[in-house]
Amino acid sequence: MQTRIAIIGYGNIGQAVEQAVLAAEDLQLAGIFHHNDNLDNIDADVAALCTPTREVPAYAERLLQRGICTVDSFDIHGQIGDLRARLTPVATAHGAVSIIAAGWDPGSDSVVRALLTAIAPKGLTYTNFGPGRSMGHTVAAKAIPGVKNALSMTIPLGTGIHRRMVYIELEEGADFHEVERLLLADDYFAHDETHVVAVPSVDALNNVAHGVHLERHGVSGSTHNQRFEFNMSINNPALTGQVLAACARAAVRLRDQQRFGAYTMIEIPPVSLLPGDAERWVRELV
Amino acid sequence: MQTRIAIIGYGNIGQAVEQAVLAAEDLQLAGIFHHNDNLDNIDADVAALCTPTREVPAYAERLLQRGICTVDSFDIHGQIGDLRARLTPVATAHGAVSIIAAGWDPGSDSVVRALLTAIAPKGLTYTNFGPGRSMGHTVAAKAIPGVKNALSMTIPLGTGIHRRMVYIELEEGADFHEVERLLLADDYFAHDETHVVAVPSVDALNNVAHGVHLERHGVSGSTHNQRFEFNMSINNPALTGQVLAACARAAVRLRDQQRFGAYTMIEIPPVSLLPGDAERWVRELV
Repeated sequence: MQTRIAIIGYGNIGQAVEQAVLAAEDLQLAGIFHHNDNLDNIDADVAALCTPTREVPAYAERLLQRGICTVDSFDIHGQIGDLRARLTPVATAHGAVSIIAAGWDPGSDSVVRALLTAIAPKGLTYTNFGPGRSMGHTVAAKAIPGVKNALSMTIPLGTGIHRRMVYIELEEGADFHEVERLLLADDYFAHDETHVVAVPSVDALNNVAHGVHLERHGVSGSTHNQRFEFNMSINNPALTGQVLAACARAAVRLRDQQRFGAYTMIEIPPVSLLPGDAERWVRELV
Repeated sequence: MQTRIAIIGYGNIGQAVEQAVLAAEDLQLAGIFHHNDNLDNIDADVAALCTPTREVPAYAERLLQRGICTVDSFDIHGQIGDLRARLTPVATAHGAVSIIAAGWDPGSDSVVRALLTAIAPKGLTYTNFGPGRSMGHTVAAKAIPGVKNALSMTIPLGTGIHRRMVYIELEEGADFHEVERLLLADDYFAHDETHVVAVPSVDALNNVAHGVHLERHGVSGSTHNQRFEFNMSINNPALTGQVLAACARAAVRLRDQQRFGAYTMIEIPPVSLLPGDAERWVRELV
């Protein structure tokens, strides 16, 4: 029995979900819906929401109301708890499951943070991102008047502190210093060390590589100096798409167990992300 | 409402569980039972089994039959699936939950392996242990005739290959070369590069530090070269004791949700290892 997945939005992430679905024997593509397509005819177990992050809540609500499970990589950290609270009653009322914030951060990194907090309850965790393109900061930079195209790179400086390297292609006649002033005053950039660099072509710099260096130093019981780190060097949309495909599988499983509601990845069993019977994975991975 | 934990067995691990329980506000010690104590008067939500690993299955069965949840760090990788199959019907019949193989490997490392397999489904995972003392190999070395005391250190050589450095204190009159010959022929050592070193005092070498370097190189969707690593440098019994305490909390939660049975750590939500409401952790960690 295959899980039927519809893809909503067909940018980088939507295309990556498609590749992950095609590579998995237990998953089946149930249609690709471009942004603004009519969704009335959608017929799927679960929809992977690959729209801009701000449109996720409305899409999720609409689909859950029709009993279709949803997965998304909603990535505004401060609003995830609110999104969960908003979608929980909708999913519950319509016999569906939504797995939210299912990318790599938030997402798989969140699972690592939860695990490390459980096994060393006192201590500090630092999540260091990059080097890699920040989608949110890139969009914010592109919105500055006078900017034709932009790329905001996140550079890890350690202990959770980051530098922003913002490469901009100016519109004809735009003044670099005025653009720089507006950008540095933008709330996205005002709190970090930010450097603005004018370049002839942003397209020539693009690269979807990204990474993380997550560290925890903590205390287990009464024993200090327990040290942990998690590192990744990855293709960003490919990883996000794969996480969404794995969570689509998990969402349908939770629905079939009648455990309706909205969940983040720290609230679901890791084995539910994997195809087939849990017993196989217990014997293979534990 | 506190979770009441009894500790069965009071060696390194039992003492570490005690420290983890004392450090957690939501956990309460419900007694410490030495090996071979009478368990008839045990009154607890959950028992942490800190006995030698081979005695775990019988203790778990006895306690589950009385409706007491159990957690253990059973560590014979090839037998975990069978232990789960054996304890599942017992726990289910008596309204209890058992979380098995709950240490760091098997245990928290298993969670990392499951997560990485889900987010990069094709590829290779290497788990490199150490440097640190292997309990199983140390016990095997101590059992060789002529060995008064022993310490078997695991040295990681990469790609999951390990060297065994075995430090032995000889009994008076024992012949080193005969002891070495017997040890190298033992099934515990026959498959790895093993070096035997005679020392005047094994006690002078003892150190409970351990570590892991876990790597996965894999494919997400159709994208290759996704690279992940997880490293730890830890006090071994302290970490195991903390994992057991966290899993004791999770076991009682699953019991309260009437999800009776036997589970490994890859089958339980990571947030269930943490104290208090999931919502707090969603807002803090996701």
